[in-house]
Amino acid sequence: MAVQPATKSDYGAAPLGLNVTRDLAAFLARFRFEDLPEAAVHEARRGVLDWIGCALAGSRHRTVETLLPVLKMLNAQPQATVFGHKLKLGLTEASLANGQMGHVLDFDDTHMGGVVLHASSPIFAALFALCERGNVDGRALVCAYAAGFEAGVRTGQAAPGHHDGGWHLTGTIGTIAAGAAAGKLLGLDAQQMTHALGIAATQAAGMQQNRGTMCKSFHAGRAASNGLLAALLAQGGFDSSEEIIEGKRGFARIYSTIARPEAVLDQLGTRWEIERNGYKPYACGVVLHPILDAMVALGQQRALKPDGIARIEARVLPLAVRITGLGDPKTGLQSKFSIYHAGAVAYLDRGAGIAQFSDARASAPDVVALRGKIEVTTDESFRKDQAQATLVTVSGERVEARVAHASGTVDNPMSDRAIENKFLANAAPVIGDARARQIAATAWRLDKLGDARELIDLCA
Amino acid sequence: MAVQPATKSDYGAAPLGLNVTRDLAAFLARFRFEDLPEAAVHEARRGVLDWIGCALAGSRHRTVETLLPVLKMLNAQPQATVFGHKLKLGLTEASLANGQMGHVLDFDDTHMGGVVLHASSPIFAALFALCERGNVDGRALVCAYAAGFEAGVRTGQAAPGHHDGGWHLTGTIGTIAAGAAAGKLLGLDAQQMTHALGIAATQAAGMQQNRGTMCKSFHAGRAASNGLLAALLAQGGFDSSEEIIEGKRGFARIYSTIARPEAVLDQLGTRWEIERNGYKPYACGVVLHPILDAMVALGQQRALKPDGIARIEARVLPLAVRITGLGDPKTGLQSKFSIYHAGAVAYLDRGAGIAQFSDARASAPDVVALRGKIEVTTDESFRKDQAQATLVTVSGERVEARVAHASGTVDNPMSDRAIENKFLANAAPVIGDARARQIAATAWRLDKLGDARELIDLCA
Repeated sequence: MAVQPATKSDYGAAPLGLNVTRDLAAFLARFRFEDLPEAAVHEARRGVLDWIGCALAGSRHRTVETLLPVLKMLNAQPQATVFGHKLKLGLTEASLANGQMGHVLDFDDTHMGGVVLHASSPIFAALFALCERGNVDGRALVCAYAAGFEAGVRTGQAAPGHHDGGWHLTGTIGTIAAGAAAGKLLGLDAQQMTHALGIAATQAAGMQQNRGTMCKSFHAGRAASNGLLAALLAQGGFDSSEEIIEGKRGFARIYSTIARPEAVLDQLGTRWEIERNGYKPYACGVVLHPILDAMVALGQQRALKPDGIARIEARVLPLAVRITGLGDPKTGLQSKFSIYHAGAVAYLDRGAGIAQFSDARASAPDVVALRGKIEVTTDESFRKDQAQATLVTVSGERVEARVAHASGTVDNPMSDRAIENKFLANAAPVIGDARARQIAATAWRLDKLGDARELIDLCA
Repeated sequence: MAVQPATKSDYGAAPLGLNVTRDLAAFLARFRFEDLPEAAVHEARRGVLDWIGCALAGSRHRTVETLLPVLKMLNAQPQATVFGHKLKLGLTEASLANGQMGHVLDFDDTHMGGVVLHASSPIFAALFALCERGNVDGRALVCAYAAGFEAGVRTGQAAPGHHDGGWHLTGTIGTIAAGAAAGKLLGLDAQQMTHALGIAATQAAGMQQNRGTMCKSFHAGRAASNGLLAALLAQGGFDSSEEIIEGKRGFARIYSTIARPEAVLDQLGTRWEIERNGYKPYACGVVLHPILDAMVALGQQRALKPDGIARIEARVLPLAVRITGLGDPKTGLQSKFSIYHAGAVAYLDRGAGIAQFSDARASAPDVVALRGKIEVTTDESFRKDQAQATLVTVSGERVEARVAHASGTVDNPMSDRAIENKFLANAAPVIGDARARQIAATAWRLDKLGDARELIDLCA
């Protein structure tokens, strides 16, 4: 029998002598548009354009079509636009729908600065719902968008074991990003922002187990609506722990085997995380992008039918195959988690856009034939943006492609023109070419808009 | 440089050869009222009465008064009753409000079968919102309530490291409980129920870091509304992983350092978890209840003012002090996490009801004086329902109280009469004595109700 004097614990004391959450919140509440470098503002312009394209392209997806009747049944009075539909829903429902459609095609932006976060779907879906109440100009929208990156990415950096722990970061830290962004748009003070972070984080959820199902993009929608609710509650006086990141039972400790809360404050105010955002040329997880660059390059060098190919040797980071090791995908959603499918279809079609991850393509005979010939080896020395592939013909000839930095990453970014072309390809089939070009022109002057509804009204 | 052949992974295969989630879902979808033992049905009657009392008593709490204006602003059309208010909100908002008010006083029921779950707040808040759409009789409500216990408690049992990991189980497995309960009420088939579990679990959240804040009861409200949404989505054809509990990145593995998925199926259909539910005589966490029994007993044996007391030696399980070690609580909400406050006030007031955890009592001079004299030692050999306390007077006299099984636990349950008395004390100040007695009479014949709205209409 062990009997010991008890020590008094205290949920109110920061264990490391750091006030990480409060300091972050104070910074988020305080910074102004003038504090943002032009490079950060330009990323906001690129980000809004890319994201709207993804949302419009996703707006007719079966996942979204399944979600919307339930949200309509919840029967909120119309307050906010559902993108790509002639429909307004309540703030909660619209932000959920728009967040889900932004992510459903796995085509939205990716931040890889110590996280894998698709920040724009949670952030913009929360912000656009609030913008429809009026009185939000382009500069306020840019500030709020940037605030979401700072909060979400930095909280993720405080929890370096988070992704390996099995969490879908767009659901978890996406909620925190959306809460901070919505809080910035609402003009919360430092105390309220602290609570917004606390209320958002305590709703953070989303399991990698749900990859390949409708729930994956649902995580992004839920992050948007939950973050929005957190900010509104904080504005209304709802409170929370003031150490939600660094506390003994706070985010960095319970969502991660490693806690590094001090990372939150590293270069805060000088390094703007929005500047490190990336955009996708392919409609699937970024982990596949380097090998898809290689597969497209092989297809451009030597276009063969599957029966002319003995095998394709793919060499990737181990993480790639852990996430996308599905050998025999049955649906379009599942096919995004198959390096075999993605590699085969990228070689055959010389690209990997929305059409390449459809239900039809997942079971197409040429793809099925080729994916059985893809042999994957892993190389721990590879960077996240690196891959190589070697095609071996039935006659024994070898063709090789090496990728040092995948396209769309920080070291090999998509150009403004490439982003606009991607946007037009995404948006025009849904909303028409003329309207799509209007949206693009409006997005490029995002920070000059007198009212953010100029942009939203074009997306209905 | 390590280069290895990749093995194909598959998110679609259960790693242990178990179909835990599917088997649980099939059971939940299949069982009928006739399968429930009378003891289980009677616990449903006790549970509904106790929970409504807690919700009514909590309906005017500052936390709820802070929540409601935001929910009204979300502006859903009125579909479901907010208990204790002349107000209807949308299904999401009403279930959130009712779940929060059910838990805000820490007075609601507790299941301790390998979990610490306040199941009724998430479950009933979800179910009552659905009941208002009509066509739900008392037997269907009892079945759905029981289904919620089976899903929530058993998922918790599959993740034995979950509570120690820092999670608030009423938020996390409460979401799963609410999802399964709502799914049962909606009559989901086995496939849909599998998805309801998957959609609910992937929203599971709530950090212990938020103890003592408005977020703690918010977790219960969010569990209700998120579980409800999960069931509605599953009914509408939304899908999810089919191994959300046992999968490689499923609940048992990422919310717990220990995974025991096979526990889900242990005695399924013969052991009904609802029969192991407990009710609270004190308005705070169950971990404090044994020592509060002892403090009340000391107060009954020897009532002294603080200046007549040298010290009170409290001996408890280490867990009790880990959770409630706050030495100097400032608010009523914080005072629930202070064994020093709770012990002092229970001794002085010979009880620990709602009034004992008010802001006023948290700073009352007699309580503050006595809580500084409480010395806590921990004893690892104690059971969860065991404690002892020794009062030492200034003249050196010693008075001792030992508690073998705290009142309200499975081994020392509250009687039906004690539950009704607690209910009347909770409900009458809010809703009047006559109406409260009507509710009690209705709850005792829960399974005989032709329409569950008979009960709900009395609670508005």
